[in-house]
Formats: sequence, C-alpha cells, structure tokens
Amino acid sequence: MPQTLTLTLPGETRPATEVLAGTGALAAAVERLRPWLEGRTVFLLSSRPVLDLHGGALEPLLAPARRRVDLEIPDGEAAKKVEVAAGLWQAMLEAGGKRDSRLVTLGGGSTGDLGGWVAASFLRGIAYAQVPSTLLAQVDASLGGKTGVDLPGGKNTVGAFHHPAFVIAETRFLTSLPREEIRAALAEVVKVALILDPPLLERVEEDLPRLLAGEPEALAPVVVAAAAAKIAVVEEDPKEGDARRLLNLGHTLGHALEAALGYRDLRHGDAVAHGLRFALRLARNRGLDPAVVERVEALLERFELPALPPLEPERLLRLMARDKKARESGLTWVLPAALGRGEMVEGVGEAEVHEELSAFLAESPYRA
Amino acid sequence: MPQTLTLTLPGETRPATEVLAGTGALAAAVERLRPWLEGRTVFLLSSRPVLDLHGGALEPLLAPARRRVDLEIPDGEAAKKVEVAAGLWQAMLEAGGKRDSRLVTLGGGSTGDLGGWVAASFLRGIAYAQVPSTLLAQVDASLGGKTGVDLPGGKNTVGAFHHPAFVIAETRFLTSLPREEIRAALAEVVKVALILDPPLLERVEEDLPRLLAGEPEALAPVVVAAAAAKIAVVEEDPKEGDARRLLNLGHTLGHALEAALGYRDLRHGDAVAHGLRFALRLARNRGLDPAVVERVEALLERFELPALPPLEPERLLRLMARDKKARESGLTWVLPAALGRGEMVEGVGEAEVHEELSAFLAESPYRA
Repeated sequence: MPQTLTLTLPGETRPATEVLAGTGALAAAVERLRPWLEGRTVFLLSSRPVLDLHGGALEPLLAPARRRVDLEIPDGEAAKKVEVAAGLWQAMLEAGGKRDSRLVTLGGGSTGDLGGWVAASFLRGIAYAQVPSTLLAQVDASLGGKTGVDLPGGKNTVGAFHHPAFVIAETRFLTSLPREEIRAALAEVVKVALILDPPLLERVEEDLPRLLAGEPEALAPVVVAAAAAKIAVVEEDPKEGDARRLLNLGHTLGHALEAALGYRDLRHGDAVAHGLRFALRLARNRGLDPAVVERVEALLERFELPALPPLEPERLLRLMARDKKARESGLTWVLPAALGRGEMVEGVGEAEVHEELSAFLAESPYRA
Repeated sequence: MPQTLTLTLPGETRPATEVLAGTGALAAAVERLRPWLEGRTVFLLSSRPVLDLHGGALEPLLAPARRRVDLEIPDGEAAKKVEVAAGLWQAMLEAGGKRDSRLVTLGGGSTGDLGGWVAASFLRGIAYAQVPSTLLAQVDASLGGKTGVDLPGGKNTVGAFHHPAFVIAETRFLTSLPREEIRAALAEVVKVALILDPPLLERVEEDLPRLLAGEPEALAPVVVAAAAAKIAVVEEDPKEGDARRLLNLGHTLGHALEAALGYRDLRHGDAVAHGLRFALRLARNRGLDPAVVERVEALLERFELPALPPLEPERLLRLMARDKKARESGLTWVLPAALGRGEMVEGVGEAEVHEELSAFLAESPYRA
C-alpha cells in the first residue's frame, strides 16, 4: 500500500507538497491528480530513454488533462543547462502555456531539478508535479523544492526554491535500475539515517541485499522513511538555514569530487558516499564515537564504492572554496555529532582538511 | 527631504523592501545600506550610458562593500534576455559570488527586471537593491518584486517574484530624462491614480508642465504617492491574485501593442497610455461615469502621445490571447469602475473587443 506524506511550510495551512510513495503510488495518484489536471494543459518533461521505459505507465495519470504536450530533454545531467531551460520556455510559450498550466517531470534528479526551475520561472511560476523514476530522486532530489541548473564550473548554481504540488514515488519503477544506481542513492539514505533516523540505518544494514537488487517491497519503506526524514527538516527550515544545511552532510567534498571529475565519471550518490566517509574522519577528530564511525564505514564498505582516480588535494580544496554553500566568511562543515544527530562546524582549519584529505586520497579503496 | 516607505508581505514582521524616495534619497541611503554591504561583494549591474551619467554619484553608496564588481549590460529592453542573464550568472560565479553577496541595479525598468531575476536565481537567490534611474522604474517597475526577461514573442515570460531589499528612488536623477520618457512614465502614474488615489490624479493634472520638465521637487511627491499606492496593492496581494492584477489596467492592450511593434518603436508607458484609453471605452460601455472618461481622456490628450502605425485588430486580439495574464479560461480585463476604484471584468465578448478596437485604431490620434 502506498503511503501519503505531506510537506507544509512554516506559517502555511495547506501542504506545499503531497507525497505518494511506495508500490502502487502511481495508480493511487490518478484520482488524486484528476482535479489538478482537468481543463488544463499539462507539459510532460522527460528524456527519450525514460519515456520508453515508463511513458506508457504515465498515460492514465495524465489522461484527465485537457491537452498534453510532451517536451523531450537530454537524459541525465546534460539537461541541466540554462540553454535547455530557455528552449523549454520558448516551446511552452509557443504551445500556449498559461499561468494555470501544469508541468509534470518524469525522470531522475536532473529532470526534476531542471523541470522544477522551468516551472518556477515560466510566467514567474506555474504548479508542477514530480514523478521520480530513480531511487535517488525518490528519496532526496524530488523533495524540498530545490530546483536549478548547472553553470560551467558550478553545479546547481542557478535556480529557485519551488515546491512540487505532488511527488509520486512509485517504487515499481525501481526494478529497472542498475545495481550501481541503487547503491549510489542509498548513500543519501545512509546520510539522513545517520543524523536523523537511526532505525532507518538499521533497516538498510539488514535489507541491503534486497535493496541493492531493486525489490520494490523492500525499497518502499526505505523511500517512505527517507522522505519523511527529509520532509521534517525542510518543514523546519525551507530556505536552507542551519537545519536544512545539515542535509549537506557529505556534500562538501562530494560536490568537489563531482566537479573535479566533470559530473560524468562519478555518480552523485557515490560522491556523497565518499564525502560521508571523509566527514566521518573530521567528526572522529572532534570526538564522534569510534563505534559509530566503524559502523558506518562497515556499511559503506558493503556498497563496493567505485575507487577515485588520482586527485590533488589542493584542487579539491579550491573547488570546495567555490561551493555555493560557502559564505564569504568561509566554509562550514556538516558533521555527524552522534548517532541520530548532525551539527554545523565552523572554523575547521584548512591545514587539518588538507592533511586528512591527503591521507584519505592516498588510502585504498579511494585510489584506483 | 526624502521619504521612507516600507513594503511588508502578508504574515511577515520585517519589511521585504525599504523604499527611500525623493530628492536626496541617494545621500540618505549611504548610511542605511552600510551594514547591508559591509564585508560583502557587491555586484553593480548597469549599462554604459547610465554608468556614464550616474555611476559617479553611486560611489559613496557602494564604498562600504568589501569588493565591488561591475557588470555591464546592454541598455534598455535588449538586456532582458535569458542569454544575457546566463552570462551574468557565469561572471558572478567566476568572480566568487556567494549566497551572501549583494547585487545592486542602476538603470531603468529593464535593468531592474533583469537584475532582479539574476539575483533571484543566482545560487537560488541573493539579496539585491534597486537604484531606478528613470521615472517609470521609480514609480512602478522597481517595486513589487516582479522580475524577469523576455522570450521571442513574449515580454516578461520568464522570471520570478523577488523583492529588492532596498529601492532608492533619487528624483535628482530624473533631470537628465527626455520629456518623452517622463510622459510615458506618467501614464503608469495616471493608471494608479485613477483606480487608487484620486488626489494624485489631481496633482498630475495641476503640475503636468513641471513634471514633464523633469523638476525633481515636483516629481518627488508624485513618486512617493505612486510608490505608496503600488505598495498598498502589493502588500495585500504579492503574488498577483485579483488585487494586484488591478495594476494591469491598460496593460492588456498595452502589451499587445508593444509585442506588435517589437518593443522598440513604442515606449512601455505610451503603450499603457493607449491601453488605458482603450480600457476607458470598455468601461464606458459598462457604465463608468462619462465625466471620468472625459477627464482622463483630457489629461492624456495633454500628454501628446505618439500616434500608432496601422495595425490589424485581429493581430492585436491574437497577441492579447497569448498575454501571460491570460488563464486557460480566457482573458480578464481590468477596467476602471469609478474614480478611485478598479475592477476585474470576466467575459468581455471578443466581438465587443473587436468592434471597439477597430474604431479605436481607426480614430485620430491613434493612427499615424
């Protein structure tokens, strides 16, 4: 049975986002979205490979709309460009899109990030829904309203906060995912579990083989728990003050690794997993229980993460200084403080980061 | 003496925007903005001609910033392109812009519209201030948070709601404006005065020669009153439900005229003035006091509006149907209902609009 979760912003009475998650979420969504679509134009934003896989399953969902206009975008991160967004806005304008038109994204995190910004900016904002087709998008990217595209040299450097009216996280879509995609997404699950939901960490430890095999029934409770943890943080802090910045655990080094490797040769989740392992080192220096460090290390060991190619620590330090979360006052690190609790740490010295990073990069399995 | 006005959004306790308006507003702003700029990078967005005119006057304002980065953009509507915004984001990223960096726009409405969207979208939103250098921008465009750029075939079709932290409306800047620019801007003043502030209408009628001559002391109270009227509407309805849509009086036909003439051969304000005269015809059909119609007609007569070239009514009807304010349910007209009151009118028949428009276009002084 699919679950329904809601995300309500501070001071609001109606939810900004309604999440339908689990096996059968798509079927449950048909009646729920009917009044939202009836009489409207719906723009469906997706890539060719995803449309081939799941486009047919989406037809009942979109059928109540007055008119459906398909907008095809490149697959993956290549879609997250200002020029791609500009082409979509032009197509939507020419197709007669109005302020009360709807947009639905079908795809992974990149499709959702692009589509969310396209919806946020078209006519200064139209309502949209996300149908995430990857585990990463279901547990993380589709929730919280962070949308945007990349610039040369900076991931997610242009965008907006714009919450989807609906997120439909159908875990049956996940059976077609390669094992490596699931592994990468589970890094984000481990991240939220470590600082927000220890029982979820236990569940991942126990069910790892079934999760990695893409079993929808095993994945459903993990998707629901990870989504609920993220929703709680976003509800407390929608615009990314400190509470929400906790979700950037593992992302400071993770983003730098992605930037260094051109966003292509390393999955986002794998980059986060490496970033998480590195954050554990800095946290251990600040007194995090070594048993927690070892436990998470042992779990990530079972992920069989891809090794990193040779990288200069200096280069990663430069990339981290340009991270969009950096303030003019310098970098803030998010670190696990204890099982179930994270913290923002200011003033981690560059010498310490350099030393730990050099050791980290030199050690197996981090070097190819 | 400059006046200070504040714009506070519903449910908020701190103002979203603080407006300093009148002669001497720029000098008064220096101390007010100091804490907002200290320790930060400030990006100054302006065009060459405006920088040549007023760049020097802005130096004391920007001096408290840690670092100033000038970003030059094309003058006027040519700047309002997605590609121009993309170039600015890239430059800001490369210059080390962070989430707590600041952006200041110096120029007319186009510079503010572009700069506001650039600020709204860079790293998902940084704070900005507007220094409007034209009367149109001072009384209208700089206030209310509507930002954005144009697409081929659609003005302001991509953008965001993003309120400037400060608007500095220095009326001394207006002495350098050509008479035609002031005339065009006064059309927006007549618009708000007609439906929101009858005493302001009287002031414009009385002071028209001094206003058209660009006298800062005559313009200051008009700028303050027009800004106050607009602020009241935006505070009630920031995201453009019905209340704020009232400000679109004159804009339905106005936008279509601008689109038909390629945004170059007709000033926005002149287009609004023509749109306002047309709205008066539809309003008269619905019982607006003929004395009000004649009074506003007489005032606009003194504006010596530019004549329109030959235009097909059918073409304007098509352009209006594509207006971004149109809903899928059809066009809504904003019409004056009485002196000091406007209304939204649904279901104005296309036949009536066609007939009135044909007569309107055929009559002097609307045909060149």
